[in-house]
Amino acid sequence: MDLNLTVYNSLTRKKEPFCPIHKDNVGMYVCGPTVYSNVHLGNCRTFLSFDLIYRYLLHLGFKVRYVRNITDVGHLENDADTGEDKIAKKARLEQIEPMEVVQRYTVDFHEVLRRFNMLHPNIEPMASGHIIEQIEMTKKILDKGLAYETNGSVYFNVEKYNKNANYGALSGRKIEDLISGTRDLDNQGEKKNPLDFALWKKASPEHIMRWPSPWGIGFPGWHLECSVMSSKYLGDSFDIHGGGMDLQFPHHECEIAQCYAANEVEPVKYWIHGNMLTFNGQRMSKSAGNSILPDELFSGEHKLLDQKYSPNTVRFFMLQAHYRSTLDISNEALKAAEKGVNRLIQGIQLLPKIQVGKESTIDVGKWKESCYIAMDDDFNSPILISHLFDSIKFINNILSGKAQIKKPDLDTLTTTLHELAFDVLGLKQEATPVAGNKTDDPVELLLSLRKDARKNNDFALSDKIRDGLAGIGIAIKDSKEGTTWSYEN
Amino acid sequence: MDLNLTVYNSLTRKKEPFCPIHKDNVGMYVCGPTVYSNVHLGNCRTFLSFDLIYRYLLHLGFKVRYVRNITDVGHLENDADTGEDKIAKKARLEQIEPMEVVQRYTVDFHEVLRRFNMLHPNIEPMASGHIIEQIEMTKKILDKGLAYETNGSVYFNVEKYNKNANYGALSGRKIEDLISGTRDLDNQGEKKNPLDFALWKKASPEHIMRWPSPWGIGFPGWHLECSVMSSKYLGDSFDIHGGGMDLQFPHHECEIAQCYAANEVEPVKYWIHGNMLTFNGQRMSKSAGNSILPDELFSGEHKLLDQKYSPNTVRFFMLQAHYRSTLDISNEALKAAEKGVNRLIQGIQLLPKIQVGKESTIDVGKWKESCYIAMDDDFNSPILISHLFDSIKFINNILSGKAQIKKPDLDTLTTTLHELAFDVLGLKQEATPVAGNKTDDPVELLLSLRKDARKNNDFALSDKIRDGLAGIGIAIKDSKEGTTWSYEN
Repeated sequence: MDLNLTVYNSLTRKKEPFCPIHKDNVGMYVCGPTVYSNVHLGNCRTFLSFDLIYRYLLHLGFKVRYVRNITDVGHLENDADTGEDKIAKKARLEQIEPMEVVQRYTVDFHEVLRRFNMLHPNIEPMASGHIIEQIEMTKKILDKGLAYETNGSVYFNVEKYNKNANYGALSGRKIEDLISGTRDLDNQGEKKNPLDFALWKKASPEHIMRWPSPWGIGFPGWHLECSVMSSKYLGDSFDIHGGGMDLQFPHHECEIAQCYAANEVEPVKYWIHGNMLTFNGQRMSKSAGNSILPDELFSGEHKLLDQKYSPNTVRFFMLQAHYRSTLDISNEALKAAEKGVNRLIQGIQLLPKIQVGKESTIDVGKWKESCYIAMDDDFNSPILISHLFDSIKFINNILSGKAQIKKPDLDTLTTTLHELAFDVLGLKQEATPVAGNKTDDPVELLLSLRKDARKNNDFALSDKIRDGLAGIGIAIKDSKEGTTWSYEN
Repeated sequence: MDLNLTVYNSLTRKKEPFCPIHKDNVGMYVCGPTVYSNVHLGNCRTFLSFDLIYRYLLHLGFKVRYVRNITDVGHLENDADTGEDKIAKKARLEQIEPMEVVQRYTVDFHEVLRRFNMLHPNIEPMASGHIIEQIEMTKKILDKGLAYETNGSVYFNVEKYNKNANYGALSGRKIEDLISGTRDLDNQGEKKNPLDFALWKKASPEHIMRWPSPWGIGFPGWHLECSVMSSKYLGDSFDIHGGGMDLQFPHHECEIAQCYAANEVEPVKYWIHGNMLTFNGQRMSKSAGNSILPDELFSGEHKLLDQKYSPNTVRFFMLQAHYRSTLDISNEALKAAEKGVNRLIQGIQLLPKIQVGKESTIDVGKWKESCYIAMDDDFNSPILISHLFDSIKFINNILSGKAQIKKPDLDTLTTTLHELAFDVLGLKQEATPVAGNKTDDPVELLLSLRKDARKNNDFALSDKIRDGLAGIGIAIKDSKEGTTWSYEN
């Protein structure tokens, strides 16, 4: 393939030509959700950004192995690794088994992503499914002398590792600044240095999620799972590692350290980070009361929402911003996106109505090229979308006789629009019904027209309506209570 | 609660009063799919039977912890435990990583069950997520002297176990008959007795799915995962263990042996087994060419199918048979089910049209009681459905003036019908459109009526149609190419 794709690499802080390690095969790992609560909208934006990247790589013809994990264990509540496991805490609160919490929110997560029309990753490994591998990597790092055991826990020795490596390279932090900036927190006593992080933690007696290990009963540190699962399924060095920008430090920094310590190779060629989502200009948070769940957007049931917005609208809205830009969500912006996505999809639906002309007054080849230039420039979906709208203007001009198009150009336009709008942007082909509209209403309207016709003794019309409905499989039944209808058996 | 539920227990071969171990809490474990191919229809029937049981237990007010596993590793191809791992084999065939196979078919499985409107279990553990626990249970059985290691594999010693227990009790087999009936297969040399089964298998060098263990690199035997995951999440003794009838031997027999050997208590109070599904009277199989996938039923794309059938129709069809009876699927039976489910749902939809009378000419209380007697009799859904149809007759008689009903009875009828049809049977509230019918058609019919009206200069009618459509959110646009419509922005 003739590849012009460039990708912004967080590690080098510049755009680089995309050149996968194994030619046409791409390995991509994205940090997935911690399933102890409903997936929030900011996470959805991150997953959507990587859905776009995955779809575009597939569209370009790459064979992609896309791995996105489920964190179902070991996500500690603060960076000092001293908090309790978030999943176990939620379980105690609700008096249920931690794996019930995991199941509830994994189901929610999958359902939300399904509604957003996101493709499934090729592998979706769970942290709890890779405890042995995490123990093995911990052993490997211990063997290299870059970790130490204290009181049943094992910590990564950041200072020692840093002698032959560069801890902080990804996030642009210097280890001296990090050390001086670390507060003294509980349990730090076990660590040689506050920067050190847990590879394995001893389980306190009340800790429910626990496994035997060479260091006693415990559970893996949060950072470890991604190092283990990415290298298990993609190899010690792979192409793309993605995640939200908030994961850059410490999570991704620790991942690099663990992988490099264990395998002595740079684990990731391109680090890609998605940016944040705000609501009405503010960071979304439960405490500020402006945290909106995807389901609340889809149902409109939230005090800050004027109406409901379809998953397709929200998807389009998010793709209207570049994945590395912050994005602010508001009713106004969502309503504009609803109009926009419908204009785009309805425009595409007009294509079959076009009658070809003898020549083309528009340059379809150049238009198509500009679309690919946009996506090749670090997946610039907003620019792509603006080009797609240009094509809708073409279509309207052709239909109103102000422009014309010949057959091969119409074919190119049709194919390109379908591929880019539906395969790459992942929009659904149906325009969004406006809020409050019911599918059944046209039938009720027909019944009311028929009622009026009967009142006016216009039986020709009333019969025409009844027969027309029968023709589309709808039977009507008149009784003293009125007219009811049903799909015919 | 006033509980009259009786359950057929495969272990005792009789119906028994249902009396859970921990009062209002029920623990239920069901053997889930092996995710190396698309879920087949017979499996769906099994899962649907337990969905009915789960829903009815919830409806009765029980707090149910429903665990259904995903077998993503270690399902050997023949009972002698000598075949290769089915998932690893599929992976080599398709040149992908085993966990990609697992993901593809787990996604398919979840999507099919979603379309069937099945509830999610509370925990859905994967075998690969419980390797450590499987190693621990193997150690425990070794410690009790009921297993032995040979050449890196560990086998369960059936004959020794049987001295103090009753191997074969569930399936009604005698150990002497089993021994004399066992063929001599490859690798049996490692076993002391052909009846012995693997708890842990040494991995051959080419075996991809492998973990370290005290006996070397290997993988768990298939039977072990269910013993481990059921006891981990439900305790050493729990209420219900379910699965397809084909799993009774050897799988469930081995499960009992493993649990009893390790924990020295009877693991399961009620064993429930679902019966088989045939097609046109024959066992479904790929080689016979009569194996139909759920998606093929839903799309109608299979040479043996006359039309497509909605998930709701197929669900209703399956519930029309008792879970312990064999069920034969055919076009005729599915078409009858399509009519039946629509008659039922449309009948329920007529309830709001009923005008209450001064007395009731029908005994709603007795009718309701008969519905619960049916379900209390080992979840007899076909009898329940026949009672629901009786109520549809009542409703039609009331609407045609042949019967009457007073307010409290109408309330009971309405509540009971909704609860039993939608909560317990899990039917969806929408009648199934007949094949080939499109949602948009009523709008096209309106547009054609409007076109005729304009041709006849009946602008009053054409305007009425346009305004009516606008009233339900549909904008129409006339152009020289004809009239198009869209949902308004």
